[in-house]
Amino acid sequence: MKKIPVCVLGATGMVGQKFIELLSNHPWFEITFICASEKSQGKKYKDAMIWRMDTPLSEKIANMIIEPCVPSNLFRIAFSGLDSNVAGQIEEDFAKSGKVVISNSKNHRMDQDVPLVIPEVNGDHLELVKTQKYKNGMIVTNPNCSVIGLAMALKPLVDVFGVEKIHVVTMQAVSGAGYPGVSSFDILDNVIPFISGEEEKVETEPLKILGTLCNTTILPYKMTISAHCNRVAVVNGHMACVSVKLKKNANSFDIVQAMTSHYKDLELPSSPKVPLQYFEDERHPQPKLHRNLEKGMQVSVGRLRKCPLLDWKFALLSHNTVRGAAGCALLNAELLVKKGYIKEVLK
Amino acid sequence: MKKIPVCVLGATGMVGQKFIELLSNHPWFEITFICASEKSQGKKYKDAMIWRMDTPLSEKIANMIIEPCVPSNLFRIAFSGLDSNVAGQIEEDFAKSGKVVISNSKNHRMDQDVPLVIPEVNGDHLELVKTQKYKNGMIVTNPNCSVIGLAMALKPLVDVFGVEKIHVVTMQAVSGAGYPGVSSFDILDNVIPFISGEEEKVETEPLKILGTLCNTTILPYKMTISAHCNRVAVVNGHMACVSVKLKKNANSFDIVQAMTSHYKDLELPSSPKVPLQYFEDERHPQPKLHRNLEKGMQVSVGRLRKCPLLDWKFALLSHNTVRGAAGCALLNAELLVKKGYIKEVLK
Amino acid sequence: MKKIPVCVLGATGMVGQKFIELLSNHPWFEITFICASEKSQGKKYKDAMIWRMDTPLSEKIANMIIEPCVPSNLFRIAFSGLDSNVAGQIEEDFAKSGKVVISNSKNHRMDQDVPLVIPEVNGDHLELVKTQKYKNGMIVTNPNCSVIGLAMALKPLVDVFGVEKIHVVTMQAVSGAGYPGVSSFDILDNVIPFISGEEEKVETEPLKILGTLCNTTILPYKMTISAHCNRVAVVNGHMACVSVKLKKNANSFDIVQAMTSHYKDLELPSSPKVPLQYFEDERHPQPKLHRNLEKGMQVSVGRLRKCPLLDWKFALLSHNTVRGAAGCALLNAELLVKKGYIKEVLK
Amino acid sequence: MKKIPVCVLGATGMVGQKFIELLSNHPWFEITFICASEKSQGKKYKDAMIWRMDTPLSEKIANMIIEPCVPSNLFRIAFSGLDSNVAGQIEEDFAKSGKVVISNSKNHRMDQDVPLVIPEVNGDHLELVKTQKYKNGMIVTNPNCSVIGLAMALKPLVDVFGVEKIHVVTMQAVSGAGYPGVSSFDILDNVIPFISGEEEKVETEPLKILGTLCNTTILPYKMTISAHCNRVAVVNGHMACVSVKLKKNANSFDIVQAMTSHYKDLELPSSPKVPLQYFEDERHPQPKLHRNLEKGMQVSVGRLRKCPLLDWKFALLSHNTVRGAAGCALLNAELLVKKGYIKEVLK
Repeated sequence: MKKIPVCVLGATGMVGQKFIELLSNHPWFEITFICASEKSQGKKYKDAMIWRMDTPLSEKIANMIIEPCVPSNLFRIAFSGLDSNVAGQIEEDFAKSGKVVISNSKNHRMDQDVPLVIPEVNGDHLELVKTQKYKNGMIVTNPNCSVIGLAMALKPLVDVFGVEKIHVVTMQAVSGAGYPGVSSFDILDNVIPFISGEEEKVETEPLKILGTLCNTTILPYKMTISAHCNRVAVVNGHMACVSVKLKKNANSFDIVQAMTSHYKDLELPSSPKVPLQYFEDERHPQPKLHRNLEKGMQVSVGRLRKCPLLDWKFALLSHNTVRGAAGCALLNAELLVKKGYIKEVLK
Repeated sequence: MKKIPVCVLGATGMVGQKFIELLSNHPWFEITFICASEKSQGKKYKDAMIWRMDTPLSEKIANMIIEPCVPSNLFRIAFSGLDSNVAGQIEEDFAKSGKVVISNSKNHRMDQDVPLVIPEVNGDHLELVKTQKYKNGMIVTNPNCSVIGLAMALKPLVDVFGVEKIHVVTMQAVSGAGYPGVSSFDILDNVIPFISGEEEKVETEPLKILGTLCNTTILPYKMTISAHCNRVAVVNGHMACVSVKLKKNANSFDIVQAMTSHYKDLELPSSPKVPLQYFEDERHPQPKLHRNLEKGMQVSVGRLRKCPLLDWKFALLSHNTVRGAAGCALLNAELLVKKGYIKEVLK
Repeated sequence: MKKIPVCVLGATGMVGQKFIELLSNHPWFEITFICASEKSQGKKYKDAMIWRMDTPLSEKIANMIIEPCVPSNLFRIAFSGLDSNVAGQIEEDFAKSGKVVISNSKNHRMDQDVPLVIPEVNGDHLELVKTQKYKNGMIVTNPNCSVIGLAMALKPLVDVFGVEKIHVVTMQAVSGAGYPGVSSFDILDNVIPFISGEEEKVETEPLKILGTLCNTTILPYKMTISAHCNRVAVVNGHMACVSVKLKKNANSFDIVQAMTSHYKDLELPSSPKVPLQYFEDERHPQPKLHRNLEKGMQVSVGRLRKCPLLDWKFALLSHNTVRGAAGCALLNAELLVKKGYIKEVLK
Repeated sequence: MKKIPVCVLGATGMVGQKFIELLSNHPWFEITFICASEKSQGKKYKDAMIWRMDTPLSEKIANMIIEPCVPSNLFRIAFSGLDSNVAGQIEEDFAKSGKVVISNSKNHRMDQDVPLVIPEVNGDHLELVKTQKYKNGMIVTNPNCSVIGLAMALKPLVDVFGVEKIHVVTMQAVSGAGYPGVSSFDILDNVIPFISGEEEKVETEPLKILGTLCNTTILPYKMTISAHCNRVAVVNGHMACVSVKLKKNANSFDIVQAMTSHYKDLELPSSPKVPLQYFEDERHPQPKLHRNLEKGMQVSVGRLRKCPLLDWKFALLSHNTVRGAAGCALLNAELLVKKGYIKEVLK
């Protein structure tokens, strides 16, 4: 089987490094090209950044030369961890040149013809790429790191009971701010009750993700979300306290049942066997204990109980740089391949 | 002026140490007696605990001998930082012997004839002590550490607009769990989405505090509260994300105006000049920056903005062991003295 | 191949849990018996503790009933993570009944007839068990968690150049104190410059480990060690700053060469391929980045440079609960099996 | 009494903010001018930085306009918290224009004619300013943040016993790296065993500080220092583990006696009553408990005990941004005034 050559855009940043880690020894994809901003171009990868992942960097990637962010015929798919200051135009240019752009950046997420996809939740939305203006190329995005876990917890409720209202308070890990990101002086012994632009994303992206593909458009799901986003002294793993108002009556057994029976293993190289797990222990889930389950791809829920204001409340956890970013993007690429959207067939 | 002799109950614990710190050099009160559990009795205070406060322990207190938790005629007021396992009975015994018990424990908070008081919010509730069965003695309590800041932020809204619904998610400091409290293995690089018994207190105590004294009873304030309580890796200072539904329309200017103009300086030895401060900077308040304002007695609010679900949301901070525990208790005692509830007159 | 039945003593504690995690799916050993203190006896394992390891607890172990710490014929080897208050006697009793006791406790480490072993360093010391008075049974210990990494870094230097003096300052993770161990109130935003009994161990145990087996005795290695031990806000991974005075002249190339060429893969189920790794990057090693290399069994060294006082200094890291405790103990057991000290042969 | 007008150079940085905090309500000095880099110039101070100190910023300073780093006749003394990239030239320019430059930057510390002063240790070195080429102007520096505490602990030993060798391992707070300084991703749950340029400073600056002023030169003190510097997850307060070899025999009583009797209160506005305190409790000193003693100006020592390698070892703590930076610089300025080196007399 010949692997599909892929490129990592923004390879030196936090998401870029995670892409490189996850793409190492991937059965379908092989990194053949890495791009980053001007100050890194021409350098060996190992000299252009400090490797901050837990697993060692392979010699091969360490010695690759960083290229400018310009399309080339050395790859078919580009995984983008670019900063949103530059991602918009570069990703369009790549798509125009016939590249499949799998982007973790926010720039095109809400574009009408761009699918905003979590494979287990709305893989059918990928069909939107057919409405894109690019010949051979396309742009596919995944949601914000706080939204992915939330949408995965809500999807079973939407399908079985309907959801009217959501109140969500996040406690987000510092890795979500990239590198160097949050100053240690600001977060040690502290909580920062504000993350720029984050609440807006949490209040809007789920509506598109949970929406319905209708011909060539997504009809957004109708519900109201209120979000308050905080930064806490955690390395990896976003926690959230969620309250929901359902459209139909439900008891806690039904809800746990809905959550735990909804998801199937997609049987892709990076898909978790159990995408959503419910914990009975009232102290769970916790970032340190559960963020790495299923290699960081499992979303954890616990503490389901009555909410005196809305109907139900629960605690939610997902690994923000894996499930909530690079891992979800990679899964999008795998699903595109499996569904045949990418021409090169794996043989 | 002769000082009133006071006792600290549970003097070796976290709240007890804070009582001792705050009572040092107090203009009205003087510690003459310290009590703790059996294993500390008979020891010098300095040999019975490790002093964990930031300011040095005075030589005088350091060398006081720890007594059993039994009333004595060496003091008039007893500040109780006792564990709730034993506080109930001991506090009653003290009150029966004619002592003024100022308790931070939860045991008697919801008793019909026991005032649950934050001086700036509902000092008039102290009148309840006249309904108590104790001759000369009395029990006065202050609320849970997470409730005090919340009630102080809500009181102006209750008075000006009326409040119908509240959604609150707390991120609480480890000092709130006492000592040794939370294991470092559990909280470093982590969030624990559960604190035993805490949500129940947050959902009920504010109703009594914000209630109305009517003859000899408190009519609870009618509103619905939903709480989710989390432990985070912060030493001191409880944060909360609060959403409120008001009874009347209000704009943000009105709300900030209500919050900042409501409170007057009580002009007690431990009262803050500005009990509640509003911060315009959207990153504020934060535990590390604002918990110690006005010696830890000021409550901080910021980020007031529309809530898509209820009406308004904001961030809230208070120092949990000062404003939220020992400092509030001390203020209760000062108010009792000023209002003449305690017979010894300061001369 | 039939697995050897084993027991975990002190199964609910931090080291006990790590033993259980490492013994899950072990190719040679199978847990058939778990023991703990009286308050846990008779309970299912899952009900007697909170599982704090990162990987899920197997159903089988979760439902095993905790037994008293008494020998039984249901196992051959006992892995002891017992508290040192009780370990001494229990371990002797087990050895007397013919059990192979693999202990992480300090009690018997310095006994003349008890080997204190790190397999890669002084596996030959296991021969000492033949001098023990137990029929069939034996006691084998591994060193203190701070000592193991140190001894592994020193062994190549001892062999090639000889070592005269060592100055070591440790910065130790909280997991080394067991559970609940260090209070979060004490360690957040703090360093504690004292760990009870630790400096004594660091100054004595290496002499035995690096000593020479001579007939039936260990002749301790002659050198002088000065240790200062600190606790820092790290979950796992003990750092140390080490200065050494060698007996022969050496340059940095020789030293790195000695360190990196000394160790061979023992080819045991739990042995690392590369027991000691040297990092060229002057910021390395670091607990967060390198503690988990080779499943926590690799020791990391970096920043070798001249010491103005002694000869050379370097930074050292090892995972304290894996390499420095349960992992090393397990390796001892594997080596005993391989060398034929344990009668049951694997077939 | 008319206050001396002063300027803060590099006013927006961590040290600059601390200068501004310490100079608020100073009895002798009044801030009349604040300078910072180009991107802040022309802005109000409050709009050019985020205030990160614990005490509120005064309205007056908040609204001052930031000026270019150019001398003016609006001030007499310039406190420099400039980055070392630019400090060298700017400080010289200021001195040439007749300003008294009190610098915390490293650039001129080792210049032959520049005093490197800790007032309590070597205030007599200020006499060096008379050898400077500047008319009216002068440059006075204070040592590196890790050196100040060390030199203060050593000075009594140098005077009474003589010191030959020092081994020091630091565990330094993140505030020492300025702002944003250390990335939270790098330091949470971690130790970084390297701080660029720090060990060189620790190994050289003490020799000058502890040296002897001989006519117009400092004869460096002769001793050998070996330093290993680490960054840990502490906000403020540098810890150090120090081993010393003395020239004369001493017992622990003599050493503690020497340390605690050496220093007198300089009776300056910012001088601590007790510059060096010895703690008997073997767990002390600790950053969280002792960094703020005497408003952060007291150095703490504890755990004096025999060192098997050198003679004695102890634990050492000082507040790095107060005692170790801005506070020491301010004390230098106060001493200059008191000794009459600055022409304007306070009347």
